[in-house]
Order: sequence, then C-alpha cells, then structure tokens
Amino acid sequence: MQTVAIIGVGLIGGSFGMAVKSRGIAQRVIGIGRNPERLQRAVELGAIDAWTTDLVEGVSEADLVYIATPVGTILDFVRDIAPHIPSGCIVTDAGSTKAEICKGADELVPRFVGGHPMAGSEEAGVEAAHPDLFVGPAYVLTPTEKTDPAARATVHRIAEAVGSRVIVMDPTAHDACTAVISHLPHVIAAALVNLAESRSHENPEVLELVAGSFRDATRVAGSSPVLWRDICSTNSESIRQSASDFCAQLEEGLHAILSGDADAIEEWFAAAKTRREQIYRHKES
Amino acid sequence: MQTVAIIGVGLIGGSFGMAVKSRGIAQRVIGIGRNPERLQRAVELGAIDAWTTDLVEGVSEADLVYIATPVGTILDFVRDIAPHIPSGCIVTDAGSTKAEICKGADELVPRFVGGHPMAGSEEAGVEAAHPDLFVGPAYVLTPTEKTDPAARATVHRIAEAVGSRVIVMDPTAHDACTAVISHLPHVIAAALVNLAESRSHENPEVLELVAGSFRDATRVAGSSPVLWRDICSTNSESIRQSASDFCAQLEEGLHAILSGDADAIEEWFAAAKTRREQIYRHKES
Repeated sequence: MQTVAIIGVGLIGGSFGMAVKSRGIAQRVIGIGRNPERLQRAVELGAIDAWTTDLVEGVSEADLVYIATPVGTILDFVRDIAPHIPSGCIVTDAGSTKAEICKGADELVPRFVGGHPMAGSEEAGVEAAHPDLFVGPAYVLTPTEKTDPAARATVHRIAEAVGSRVIVMDPTAHDACTAVISHLPHVIAAALVNLAESRSHENPEVLELVAGSFRDATRVAGSSPVLWRDICSTNSESIRQSASDFCAQLEEGLHAILSGDADAIEEWFAAAKTRREQIYRHKES
Repeated sequence: MQTVAIIGVGLIGGSFGMAVKSRGIAQRVIGIGRNPERLQRAVELGAIDAWTTDLVEGVSEADLVYIATPVGTILDFVRDIAPHIPSGCIVTDAGSTKAEICKGADELVPRFVGGHPMAGSEEAGVEAAHPDLFVGPAYVLTPTEKTDPAARATVHRIAEAVGSRVIVMDPTAHDACTAVISHLPHVIAAALVNLAESRSHENPEVLELVAGSFRDATRVAGSSPVLWRDICSTNSESIRQSASDFCAQLEEGLHAILSGDADAIEEWFAAAKTRREQIYRHKES
C-alpha cells in the first residue's frame, strides 16, 4: 500500500500509524488533524511521516483513509472527503458504534469498511500510542451487503497484519453486543454514582463507606462525557433494549432475594460466578 | 484486656488477632473454630495464642468475644455463647449487615456492640491476614439504644487502636448505605453477567468482545455465592429500596439518551464523573 491517510492522530490513529509503518504495510503515512503541534509530535513519535491540517490535500493521494476521530464526527469526515479521495481509495473507521456510520458511509463512498478495534480508549492521545496496541484484542469489521468485497478483504488483511483477531459482524449486531458489554455498563456506572450521591443527602456517611466493589463498579463513570455522549447518541435504541433486558435480569435476582429462599439466592449468584469464569476462560483460550 | 476470644479465624478474625496481639491490647488471644489444622496454622502465623474447637470452653474466660464468621451464622453464635460468657464480657462482630444482628444480639447478651470493619473480604482465610488490615479503612460501629455505653466505648477504643477510622451509625442506616455502595453493586454485577450470557445465545460474538469496562463492572460477580446469599438474605429490604432508587437514576440517564438531546446526555455523564471525583477526593482527604 502506497499511502495511508489517518484522520485523527490520537491513541488509536497514532497506534495504527505506528503499526502499519513498523510492519511495512504502508510506504507513507499522512496524519490529518487540526493541531500542528500535536501532529508534529506524532511525526517525532514515529506515528506518521508527514502531516497536514488540510483534509482535501491529506486524502488526495490516499490508498486507504483511516478515520479515528470521535464517533460523532466520523460521518462528517466521510462526507467531507468523499469528493476528494482517489478512485479505488478504501475508507475505514475506528468508531465505537457502527450501524449509523455504516449506513451513512455506504451512501457516501464506494469502498467503505466499518471497523472497531476493541483496544484502548479514544481519549488518551498520541503520547500513549504504540505499534502493538492492536496485538491481542478483537478487531471487529462490520461489512454490509453494499461493501466492496475486495476492500473488505484488504481491511481484513491489514487488521490481521497489525496483530488483531478479526471478528466479522453485522453493524446492528455489533451495536447490540457493545451496548450489552460496554455502553450499558457505562450508563450503569454513572447511575450508581448518582445513586450514592443522592443517598448522601440523607446519610452523609455513605460516601465514607465506599470500598473496592463501588470503586470497580463505577470506574468507567470517570470516562469522557463527550465521548460517551457521542456513543450513546449513536446507539440509543440498542442501549434502551439492553437496559430493558438488564432490568429483567436484575428483577430475577431481586425476586430471589426478596423471596427469602436462601437456595434460590445462592444459585442465582453461583450461576453468574460460573458464567463469568466461562466468559474469561473462553476469552483466554 | 486479659483474654480475647475470636470465633472464626479467617482473614478478618485472624487479622484482628494479629492487630490486638501486636499492639499489646490483649494479653491472650484464643481462636475458636472447627478445623484444628487451620487453627494451628493461625497460631504459627501469630494470629492467636491458643485454640479450641469447643465454643463453651473458648469463651469461658473472655473479656471480649470477636465474632468474624459468615454473616448468616453470627446470631447463632451469639445465642450459643450467651449462657457461657463471663459477666462483664463484651461481644462484638464483624458482619457485613447489622440491623438483624444487632436487633437479635441485643436480646441475647447484655454487652453487644455491632461492628463492620470495611476491610478485605471474609473469604480469603488466615493466610492473607495481617496486623495492619484495619489501618486506614472505616470501621463502622452500630450501637443501639440498648447498647451498654461502657462496652461501646471500649470497642470504639479498640477499633481506633488497631488503626481504623471509626464511624458510628444506626444499624438500619448502615444497612441502607452498604446496600447502595456494596450489596446492590454485587447484584448488578451478577445481573450484567447473566445479561451477557443470555445475549450470547443470539449473538455468540458478544463474549469475544468483552473488554475492560465489562471486566471491572462484573469483577465482584466472582465473589462467594454463599457469602452474598447471607448478606442479601439479611438485608433484602434495603437492597430492594436501593434497587428501586437505582432504577430511577438509570431511567434518568436513559431518558436523556433516548431524547437525542446531546447536551442533556453530556451533562448527565459529566455530573456523574464530577460526583465520582468528589467522592474519592473526599475519601482521600
């Protein structure tokens, strides 16, 4: 591949640049962003070879455009670059939600392949980037029936070449799954923090008592509100559905607890413990 | 204090033994349990001076009995030792729920002081015990109007002497607060695991996608089902109430997300992030 253009050279974009440069996948990597100092820093760190703040110039010779900006801005970038990319250019992204983006991008460019590397967070910046960020975690690709098969195969090969296990999913299934294992847990964490704060009006001691379980359960409530605004805005229906399913599971546990049936309570907790062990055994195997 | 008897020489009981021995708070510490090998190990580790499997013999000369057994068994032990403790003997416990235990124990022995050290977990055994386990975390005491003031003052001094910040609370307020910051988070973690497992029947990939946020949010679902059966059984009403309050908070977040109002979503997440930072700043100060 001759030229790769990366829009948004943060943790994910910067790591992708390092990964394709260090593995000889691309001859030349152009970084596109707004902040010249940060882009220059990305050159120094080896994430990109050159940079521009001019989107049209940046993509004009690209064989692949990699969009690693906040999820709420991705479709805008696809729209903006569409008239300016060379024919044959593949466009892919690293957004945390896929249904809206893939639906929109399929209409805008002929060779779009939706992607979601399950690595790191979009927030940490190029200083945290490293060429092996994608080694190990899953890299989801979400082709649709409109996706060009050759473009899909190329992005698949690149994702594997940077070290990821590729999982191919329908964009809607991707969003339904990430709602369950990531988006809803973020909403729950925020709700738990708000619950504790609300309870502290009546019992101020509650904030003195917070211990390890609360710290873990609410850790992701410290994430970027802007990032999660965008993720939730673009996946609201799946989050609603998963919240509804979650409440049914919670209801089941509460039903056992309120029944006073000790065996039923123990069984309910034991089933969750066993399932969690299976999930992580499965993941590690 | 001449003689302290500890019923249940695991992480908490063993650490309490080490803490009072190493600080010269007790002349002699007797461990009471069922397993001679584990009790002998507790002697070797310096947690106790001597041991017995005979409850009556173990408490017969005690100035203080410290009950650190699973929460579902504590009242039974109070009942069993009541006819055999010396007059003037103080009884305290380390159970994770307090209302049922304090109500029952107040009727059974004249000098009961409910306690809950917010340190460690009841599950890890004497091998994990150490004399500074109580240094730092809160140690809740839950005296009632029936609690003997001198007994209460003595247990308060001991809890401070082993290094804890003592927080005095009504047993019911304690249970309402721990429901919010510990018990409900455990139930939520189990419900999240069950949700992911249930979703995997439709989308098997969901289990491939689990990442850091799910791991943290569900970590406590790996806790002992027997321990959590007992905690939930003895605090079901507070858990029900906190679950109901939690669902209202969740509803508020979902309402913002489903409204499509980006500012409202961002504000909701931002409020939780700020509150969480305040909770931990408050704790550390």
